[in-house]
Amino acid sequence: MDEKDIRILKAIGTLGSGSPDRITDETGIPKSTVHYRLKKLQEDGIIENEVFDINFKKAGLGLTLITEVWAEYDSGYHKTVGEKLGEINGVNQVYFTLGDTDFILVSHLMSREMVEELIEAFEDVDEIDRTSSTFVITTLKNEPNPFNDYDIEKLMTKLLPEMD
Amino acid sequence: MDEKDIRILKAIGTLGSGSPDRITDETGIPKSTVHYRLKKLQEDGIIENEVFDINFKKAGLGLTLITEVWAEYDSGYHKTVGEKLGEINGVNQVYFTLGDTDFILVSHLMSREMVEELIEAFEDVDEIDRTSSTFVITTLKNEPNPFNDYDIEKLMTKLLPEMD
Amino acid sequence: MDEKDIRILKAIGTLGSGSPDRITDETGIPKSTVHYRLKKLQEDGIIENEVFDINFKKAGLGLTLITEVWAEYDSGYHKTVGEKLGEINGVNQVYFTLGDTDFILVSHLMSREMVEELIEAFEDVDEIDRTSSTFVITTLKNEPNPFNDYDIEKLMTKLLPEMD
Amino acid sequence: MDEKDIRILKAIGTLGSGSPDRITDETGIPKSTVHYRLKKLQEDGIIENEVFDINFKKAGLGLTLITEVWAEYDSGYHKTVGEKLGEINGVNQVYFTLGDTDFILVSHLMSREMVEELIEAFEDVDEIDRTSSTFVITTLKNEPNPFNDYDIEKLMTKLLPEMD
Amino acid sequence: MDEKDIRILKAIGTLGSGSPDRITDETGIPKSTVHYRLKKLQEDGIIENEVFDINFKKAGLGLTLITEVWAEYDSGYHKTVGEKLGEINGVNQVYFTLGDTDFILVSHLMSREMVEELIEAFEDVDEIDRTSSTFVITTLKNEPNPFNDYDIEKLMTKLLPEMD
Amino acid sequence: MDEKDIRILKAIGTLGSGSPDRITDETGIPKSTVHYRLKKLQEDGIIENEVFDINFKKAGLGLTLITEVWAEYDSGYHKTVGEKLGEINGVNQVYFTLGDTDFILVSHLMSREMVEELIEAFEDVDEIDRTSSTFVITTLKNEPNPFNDYDIEKLMTKLLPEMD
Amino acid sequence: MDEKDIRILKAIGTLGSGSPDRITDETGIPKSTVHYRLKKLQEDGIIENEVFDINFKKAGLGLTLITEVWAEYDSGYHKTVGEKLGEINGVNQVYFTLGDTDFILVSHLMSREMVEELIEAFEDVDEIDRTSSTFVITTLKNEPNPFNDYDIEKLMTKLLPEMD
Amino acid sequence: MDEKDIRILKAIGTLGSGSPDRITDETGIPKSTVHYRLKKLQEDGIIENEVFDINFKKAGLGLTLITEVWAEYDSGYHKTVGEKLGEINGVNQVYFTLGDTDFILVSHLMSREMVEELIEAFEDVDEIDRTSSTFVITTLKNEPNPFNDYDIEKLMTKLLPEMD
Repeated sequence: MDEKDIRILKAIGTLGSGSPDRITDETGIPKSTVHYRLKKLQEDGIIENEVFDINFKKAGLGLTLITEVWAEYDSGYHKTVGEKLGEINGVNQVYFTLGDTDFILVSHLMSREMVEELIEAFEDVDEIDRTSSTFVITTLKNEPNPFNDYDIEKLMTKLLPEMD
Repeated sequence: MDEKDIRILKAIGTLGSGSPDRITDETGIPKSTVHYRLKKLQEDGIIENEVFDINFKKAGLGLTLITEVWAEYDSGYHKTVGEKLGEINGVNQVYFTLGDTDFILVSHLMSREMVEELIEAFEDVDEIDRTSSTFVITTLKNEPNPFNDYDIEKLMTKLLPEMD
Repeated sequence: MDEKDIRILKAIGTLGSGSPDRITDETGIPKSTVHYRLKKLQEDGIIENEVFDINFKKAGLGLTLITEVWAEYDSGYHKTVGEKLGEINGVNQVYFTLGDTDFILVSHLMSREMVEELIEAFEDVDEIDRTSSTFVITTLKNEPNPFNDYDIEKLMTKLLPEMD
Repeated sequence: MDEKDIRILKAIGTLGSGSPDRITDETGIPKSTVHYRLKKLQEDGIIENEVFDINFKKAGLGLTLITEVWAEYDSGYHKTVGEKLGEINGVNQVYFTLGDTDFILVSHLMSREMVEELIEAFEDVDEIDRTSSTFVITTLKNEPNPFNDYDIEKLMTKLLPEMD
Repeated sequence: MDEKDIRILKAIGTLGSGSPDRITDETGIPKSTVHYRLKKLQEDGIIENEVFDINFKKAGLGLTLITEVWAEYDSGYHKTVGEKLGEINGVNQVYFTLGDTDFILVSHLMSREMVEELIEAFEDVDEIDRTSSTFVITTLKNEPNPFNDYDIEKLMTKLLPEMD
Repeated sequence: MDEKDIRILKAIGTLGSGSPDRITDETGIPKSTVHYRLKKLQEDGIIENEVFDINFKKAGLGLTLITEVWAEYDSGYHKTVGEKLGEINGVNQVYFTLGDTDFILVSHLMSREMVEELIEAFEDVDEIDRTSSTFVITTLKNEPNPFNDYDIEKLMTKLLPEMD
Repeated sequence: MDEKDIRILKAIGTLGSGSPDRITDETGIPKSTVHYRLKKLQEDGIIENEVFDINFKKAGLGLTLITEVWAEYDSGYHKTVGEKLGEINGVNQVYFTLGDTDFILVSHLMSREMVEELIEAFEDVDEIDRTSSTFVITTLKNEPNPFNDYDIEKLMTKLLPEMD
Repeated sequence: MDEKDIRILKAIGTLGSGSPDRITDETGIPKSTVHYRLKKLQEDGIIENEVFDINFKKAGLGLTLITEVWAEYDSGYHKTVGEKLGEINGVNQVYFTLGDTDFILVSHLMSREMVEELIEAFEDVDEIDRTSSTFVITTLKNEPNPFNDYDIEKLMTKLLPEMD
């Protein structure tokens, strides 16, 4: 990636769109370059499918739970248990962490009845020792494009360190 | 939303694409209906922009941190503090929770030096009392489309409860 | 429920009485309406038996304990264990919660010797892994009628949302 | 209280009714005695008003939260803070405890939006340092009459110790 | 116990002596009464043997540890485990508590090597799940006679409540 | 101290008495030696006053609390705060510890009402940040003479290391 | 660094010596090469002074404490507080960590009296909120040369990743 | 050790060198005495091999983790488990502690991939129940020579207590 790539990726985030015309307007990079670069970024696997962004709340998935999971400690357990957790209805993110908790999960649920179903699904996984969930009162940020989490300057200095 | 909408939303998740042709192939719903429904779902705000999916790791954002934040307890504090947290470079998700911790954050960083920068950015927010971060060893799941987190049957019974 | 029902339910709480005469005095709703509505609320199961309120302290049950219970994690365990907990002498409330603790219990006991008996009763339930109890120094509120926990305005806006 | 009183109190619990006829049927104690004793128990303040029992769920108060509260440590603080907590809409029980947590609260709420209102009401109490709430998944027991929490034998041996 | 008994018991604490002469000097109670009362208090088991007070530090037992013990949860376990703990060399006090920890122990040891021996003795008790010990930096108070922990007025009002 | 001293100190513990005759019977050490040694141990401050042992329970002090105290962290605070804690009615032992908690206290109280008084006395000490108390269900051991906590062999090897 | 450098560094660890002769014997690398490489490693700052290894226990520093420190949260605080901690007598290692605790310290002390001095030195640092120390019972490993912590194969594959 | 020894040991720390000439310059102790004393200190095992100091960061071991380990509680377990922990690649220090955690470990790793390898190595040790690791953001102090952790006055008063 060079500076142009980063400016294009950032523009995709800012615009919430991958339209070459709009990226050119935003960045001043000629449209043919934008075309070429987008193709290259897809070939390199940095950007993937162009998909619709889902509005969780409007789609009826407005209840978010964060769950800590402790599992039986065994050789290679974090892979097998982590996969089982990921297959449970409603579980959206599964992180295996370094700290006190084995896994941290984010789930998006449809209704309060689903909370009990989720807890029962955890109870049905043999390797799980204990879970502790907390209810999200307000989601203050959940950004699909991580380039939106950064100033353009920070992206430049961090992804192009040789430019310092 | 009715059954057709849910099948279309689920197909978008499965295919990783919003192409009407492919949705018709996947669901058997006539293409003109798919077109009309997609337009309707966008008007209702259930689906939003069609954007490129970013591969975090390949884009150089392969280090994930989960941070618990405790802030000074004050009238309306969770909104003002939550917004400040969301503006820090690298912070991708900000949840205000019911439990012991005030905020839970997910951040995607580029390098180990950024960890210290993130910690210093937290230190610069006056209202923060303390933070505790843990390093994600493996991200076992991080699904952009929450409809992919569900079986089609579950979606049907939960989003169309009147059909029971 | 409509506004009249809520005003009647709130009056029952305020007066500590279900007497139609007194409810009429309190609310200005005609006595025949009060009669009819009380009957309807009973048919709908919203109000149940008219029972004496017990003064715990004077009845000799002046010692209150709050107990956290952790149980063996197993499929469906929260129902079977929860029922066993509810059958123990002195256990008054049994909550299965989302957080770190499996169950939270409130017990009303008669004497200090009963504390040891309660702990021994917990020890006799096989599925229990651990308990932690704390002694209530002062019960500052324990309201039998939850409508007394609300202002009449709050009840109106929350139970009649369509009126907003 | 003597044995007859305890049998009457227990019968009120079992029957969910204070009807002298039914108490006589249940206990075999002559109706005139039941009348006299009920009057005496009321004069002694052991039983209070005869009130309708509210079905929380049907009355629209189906969401239960348990909250731990830590407050600023100051001379006499537990009384002033405890009273403020009891005045917050939805707070049903307030216990000042011996353990790690200053107060434990049980609240019955009407809807998920009320959770945020409750948290904001806590934020508005100056003396509160921190709160941690957990969501009740299932209420397995919540008995209005504590005599129902006991076997008749236990009540006899504990409330009439001189009979041992 | 009446007022005279309490004044005598308190004087024993203040003087660190059970000498009737000195108690008479301290309290103004006639010596013959003191004699008679001491005999009565011994017969009632309120005071026991007259023994030498040991100065822990000078006797070479200057290292104090406080240990929390968690044991396997089983029917009647607190008695059997508690007794085993009390038999370990150096363990001076064993409390079975209501809270999070099963047992709290105070031990007086002779040297740092004994710390390891104590930990190994705990490891040898099968029913113990885990221990956590902390080292006492300074013992600010350790009073053999609990009457010395009270003002005379407090003793009077609390042990003679009928006098209020 | 030499071997004879240790055997005498242990005998005092075993017998619950400092009577030279009984110590001679127990140890076989000639009475004149016992006399001389006891005098020497007193001169060296190893044994102090000969005092009556109090039976806590029979003396009306049957309720034991263990309290953790956290105080404001300041230069030399542990001495000033520790002394204030020791002066509170009912506080029997005050330990300043190395671990997470600043002070650990053992208190012997007369009645449940005193629990609230003790908590209020803690609230009145300005430097205290927080306390957490737990109720002792059973005191399984509380030995006034620490030599009773040891086998005679252990005492010999530990207090006379040069003999190894 | 290349393979020869790693083999030399590992040999220094294994032998506990930087003698070129012995390194040649251990590795089979010609002595002149060893000489040249050692000089180069010193110029690059990878190896520093050749110093005597201290035997902590024999040098009278046999008591090890591990301390967690929480400090006032402020802009840049971890540098200023960390330096103050490092200047306290006996503090050997100071780590600023990502987790729940701000700093983790390892200290080597000479005697039990020094524990109290260390605690008092912490109390004298204004920015410190709280400390919690634990006593090391046994140091099972404390390796001055980190190359001794690795198999030679692991060193090769990890430090020479391009060779994979 | 006498005063001269301590001054020599401290000089070695200050200079980062064991050169007799430089020690003489620093301390004013005649060179022949320095020679003799160094030899004596080595014979007594107080100083050991003269080895190169490794610069962790420059040698490619710049990632430090601190790990808490809880193991199955069993007779003598701390020795067997502690040794197994010490043999894991990258583990540099292993402490068996008195507190809540069984072992505290310091590890120096080469890269982020090694974190997962380390966690897997822990998972492969049967006796381990759970681990919790935290990432060191900044190492503010890590002193190879503990005499450098002390003022010369402190060393004198503590190691030569008879001189007070």
